[in-house]
Amino acid sequence: MSLAAPFYTSPEVFDLDIAEIFSKQWIFVATEPEIAEPGDFVTVTLGRYSVIIARDDDEQVQAYHNVCRHRGARILAEESGSVGNIVCSYHQWTYGMDGKLLYAEGQSPTFDKSCFSLRSVNVRSIAGLIFICLADEPPADIDDVAAIVAPYLEPHDLRKAKVAKQVDLVEHGNWKLTMENNRECYHCSVGHPELLNTFFPTWGYSDSEAIPTRLRPIFDRFNAAMVEHKAVWDHYGLPHERVAELDTRPTGFHIEREPMDLAGESFTLDGTVASTKLLTDMPVTRLGRLSMHAQPNLWLHITSDHAITFSVLPIGPDTCRVRTTWLVHEDAEEGVDYDLDRMTNVWEITNQQDANFVGLAQEGISSPAYVPGPYAPSEFQVEAFINWYIGRLRFHRGIPDDHLSVVQEAG
Amino acid sequence: MSLAAPFYTSPEVFDLDIAEIFSKQWIFVATEPEIAEPGDFVTVTLGRYSVIIARDDDEQVQAYHNVCRHRGARILAEESGSVGNIVCSYHQWTYGMDGKLLYAEGQSPTFDKSCFSLRSVNVRSIAGLIFICLADEPPADIDDVAAIVAPYLEPHDLRKAKVAKQVDLVEHGNWKLTMENNRECYHCSVGHPELLNTFFPTWGYSDSEAIPTRLRPIFDRFNAAMVEHKAVWDHYGLPHERVAELDTRPTGFHIEREPMDLAGESFTLDGTVASTKLLTDMPVTRLGRLSMHAQPNLWLHITSDHAITFSVLPIGPDTCRVRTTWLVHEDAEEGVDYDLDRMTNVWEITNQQDANFVGLAQEGISSPAYVPGPYAPSEFQVEAFINWYIGRLRFHRGIPDDHLSVVQEAG
Amino acid sequence: MSLAAPFYTSPEVFDLDIAEIFSKQWIFVATEPEIAEPGDFVTVTLGRYSVIIARDDDEQVQAYHNVCRHRGARILAEESGSVGNIVCSYHQWTYGMDGKLLYAEGQSPTFDKSCFSLRSVNVRSIAGLIFICLADEPPADIDDVAAIVAPYLEPHDLRKAKVAKQVDLVEHGNWKLTMENNRECYHCSVGHPELLNTFFPTWGYSDSEAIPTRLRPIFDRFNAAMVEHKAVWDHYGLPHERVAELDTRPTGFHIEREPMDLAGESFTLDGTVASTKLLTDMPVTRLGRLSMHAQPNLWLHITSDHAITFSVLPIGPDTCRVRTTWLVHEDAEEGVDYDLDRMTNVWEITNQQDANFVGLAQEGISSPAYVPGPYAPSEFQVEAFINWYIGRLRFHRGIPDDHLSVVQEAG
Repeated sequence: MSLAAPFYTSPEVFDLDIAEIFSKQWIFVATEPEIAEPGDFVTVTLGRYSVIIARDDDEQVQAYHNVCRHRGARILAEESGSVGNIVCSYHQWTYGMDGKLLYAEGQSPTFDKSCFSLRSVNVRSIAGLIFICLADEPPADIDDVAAIVAPYLEPHDLRKAKVAKQVDLVEHGNWKLTMENNRECYHCSVGHPELLNTFFPTWGYSDSEAIPTRLRPIFDRFNAAMVEHKAVWDHYGLPHERVAELDTRPTGFHIEREPMDLAGESFTLDGTVASTKLLTDMPVTRLGRLSMHAQPNLWLHITSDHAITFSVLPIGPDTCRVRTTWLVHEDAEEGVDYDLDRMTNVWEITNQQDANFVGLAQEGISSPAYVPGPYAPSEFQVEAFINWYIGRLRFHRGIPDDHLSVVQEAG
Repeated sequence: MSLAAPFYTSPEVFDLDIAEIFSKQWIFVATEPEIAEPGDFVTVTLGRYSVIIARDDDEQVQAYHNVCRHRGARILAEESGSVGNIVCSYHQWTYGMDGKLLYAEGQSPTFDKSCFSLRSVNVRSIAGLIFICLADEPPADIDDVAAIVAPYLEPHDLRKAKVAKQVDLVEHGNWKLTMENNRECYHCSVGHPELLNTFFPTWGYSDSEAIPTRLRPIFDRFNAAMVEHKAVWDHYGLPHERVAELDTRPTGFHIEREPMDLAGESFTLDGTVASTKLLTDMPVTRLGRLSMHAQPNLWLHITSDHAITFSVLPIGPDTCRVRTTWLVHEDAEEGVDYDLDRMTNVWEITNQQDANFVGLAQEGISSPAYVPGPYAPSEFQVEAFINWYIGRLRFHRGIPDDHLSVVQEAG
Repeated sequence: MSLAAPFYTSPEVFDLDIAEIFSKQWIFVATEPEIAEPGDFVTVTLGRYSVIIARDDDEQVQAYHNVCRHRGARILAEESGSVGNIVCSYHQWTYGMDGKLLYAEGQSPTFDKSCFSLRSVNVRSIAGLIFICLADEPPADIDDVAAIVAPYLEPHDLRKAKVAKQVDLVEHGNWKLTMENNRECYHCSVGHPELLNTFFPTWGYSDSEAIPTRLRPIFDRFNAAMVEHKAVWDHYGLPHERVAELDTRPTGFHIEREPMDLAGESFTLDGTVASTKLLTDMPVTRLGRLSMHAQPNLWLHITSDHAITFSVLPIGPDTCRVRTTWLVHEDAEEGVDYDLDRMTNVWEITNQQDANFVGLAQEGISSPAYVPGPYAPSEFQVEAFINWYIGRLRFHRGIPDDHLSVVQEAG
């Protein structure tokens, strides 16, 4: 059953989500190609937090609270850029890329600069995917997760990629509705005609008997493609066993490698590659997709020619932001090696369709007449998301095992 | 005296108004001509509720909560339209016009469709005026009210009319200020010069001695017209005795038939009909107006050639929506039988003037320096509205008889 | 140290600021030249209050709540204008400029007009600067303050000035951040290049040893100019001793007379006068500036040729309005005696720069990662503002002496 209405509508639960989920879990916020060089930075808004993600002079990824230690001004106002030092524009307090206060004019002789470094934030890159955790003690299983997923991701060399396009879409729904929408393809058949050119709509069905009659020919085609692709993946040493730990660990995730339909190469309308400069040296275009989901806010797909990452960040009880980033090989040239519109248009359309569904869900659930309804069997990943979410709230708050008590606690 | 400030400004009282008035009383939401054919629907927003008003395959008016029983999505996103079945666009759950779930793909064999019908809402049409009540047990006196007012309304055949125009106006004031403004004409003399061409500004004065000197000649003209019109109404068998039960029953109302000034036929600038195709077969244009007020949110006027209905729906503590609908005979052709601008411009101007007054009232009352002030004798219907409103809050909440305790209860 | 975050972000503290500071202290709201003639008025929004400031038929300044005593409508909707009587547009209740109800149509014979005068507000003009106090018992030390500052201000004849320009700027920060920004010039060196043409950036440094090396030559120039100016001020009988009582009395203030840089005459880019028609008959243009700060919301500067007043009014926890008014001699003609752009552009640019800093401060402090930081020695007037503010809250609320308890009390 879906959650009770306050989980999607109440300001108190929104505050709870920021405090207990987005401030205590590992949150996917950027990719390494966005800060390729020392001094490069992006700023990320997470609830009321603003965090600077920057590459330091030793080429390491660092994260700091974007708050001056003098009188609290926002230091870097831009969403991205490149700097030598981190300088607050208000009174020119100047911090190194290591976060240390280097200079503050006009202080008394007793002023101790070492007490006023930028406050750091835990940060972790897994194969080029940057996660931060605002808590002092982040979930420790990130090491285990990294050990499992890195072998799947690293052959695709995301650290050597560059950003082809990045789009932010504000959706008029609670962030959990956006995640739930992502976690099932029950809505794809009518909802996403363009995506379904290459994405098998049988996703979510494991048992051929349960599949609606109209989908059975497609399921047969999917199974045949799976046999073909496994041979290719094995040939190139690409791990492809599905790992499904969405609700069985603190840093829940799911990774899988699957074939795609039509040409089977990429998320284009005909399935052929959008970039002829592939992400890696493997001389094969028809590789299907490597897909990863991580709780609470990530999904991504990697094909032979490009990668697409999605991060969801809450804005308010009924609004969130979905950031979509397309990555290509760092040497690929737009207009020469790849056609940007062709590469991006299927997911741009799909995102808009999903935003519409999320908006309808938010509007409907906001009615006092809403009552939780039953998930279909193919919505099992939605259930896994809900289970993980409630489990994490319980873990962080130490409260009993049912949905409504969480809300009461919040209220 | 006017109400204390929190009744017009506080979010808590607004929630109380939605819970105790708009969720428990009969609320006027539409007219039958808006859903003339089977499959036609309108959606109505009432607080956080969205309700579908539809004509079913048996030509009956039905009302359902606009919330899918699967995961709660808003089903019909349009304000009006025509459908075969009621289909949720998210996962294609399909309901009949009778609200029953007909189809939901991919469910397990144990799934019982009969448990997932749309949730219905009480609905009632009186001579073509559609009222809904969100409560399980609506005020029972709607039957008595229907028995009283139907004989006045039915000769005007609203069910056979069609919509000539419908306009929504967002007013920047609490819904009660909009209702209070409607319930008196003390502000008309300077406030509504166009309306006063045909609407006697003596409305609200029953005793000629109390009438300001400047209005006495008009009052004489009104009284003479009243004598003339009564003979006409009697000739055509039109009931015209005033019934004033605005604060003496749960479903408070007031109905009256009165003459109009100048040509006395219609709400045009010169008082002549705007539509030569009259609403009924009665061969007389100078019929004055039939006017009805019902608590909490309706007023309407019917002249020989057209009808105008007004519904007020709250949006927030300081905002409401006024929907104005002009109805003409279903066979009347725009540009041939009626001039739409001529028919609508007096009330469009009047509505704008009233919206301005409501905005000023909201702004003034929002000052902590506001203290309730005295109603003039001609504002007796405002008092009746306030009495009815406080009485209904007391009835539904079982709280004692003074204004402030209601607010304390709300806080 | 700067205040804890809730002082800048919480709605509860905002309500406290309106209730305990802006409703109980003397607030600067206008200058007499804005209401030069009987019947002239301005309306001022102060929290949820709207106040009419008007000149009555005896040429006295009066202040009334802008709320009709009938049903509470906002009476004067314009920000400024000129009227014969104060007439509510809703039902034409008509008040004299003395606030008495003159006329209300259609009342019963027992209606007593004398009970329905406009509610008055305490008002006080000091040398043309209009202050109001919403409390029944305003701080009594306004008499002492007037006695001290009037001799400084009166030689500049503000009552005989006229408004050359008035600009309202909405800043996206708590009003206290706008005040704090005004109370220090630590941010000027990089932040206000245009202003620093004439405004010595050494403002705030009293001890030459503490001054940053780069500012020492400027400090020498300032000290030389001070010697020169004192002789001039003494010659013309202009008081110039600094009085610093920002946090030592209920109506905290600071007044000083200082030289300016370059031509030293005015806030223009080269320091020469912008108006050749001076404010007074004194035949000297190089007079430096007379500057006054008053808690909670005023600062002003007067040069030989013009005056600039600033008032800060809260709008919400994270928004305030800064009104800047430029005054010139009443006989000065634009384009003949003064060039308006040249007179206003330095402070228009400076205000925009400050609005940007205030916005960055608000954004940074809104992060839960903000912790109060240390003031630099040259920020002593910021400390004085904070001390005064906390002291006033303590005085009005009777609560103990630390910041957080104030917030807890508010919550």
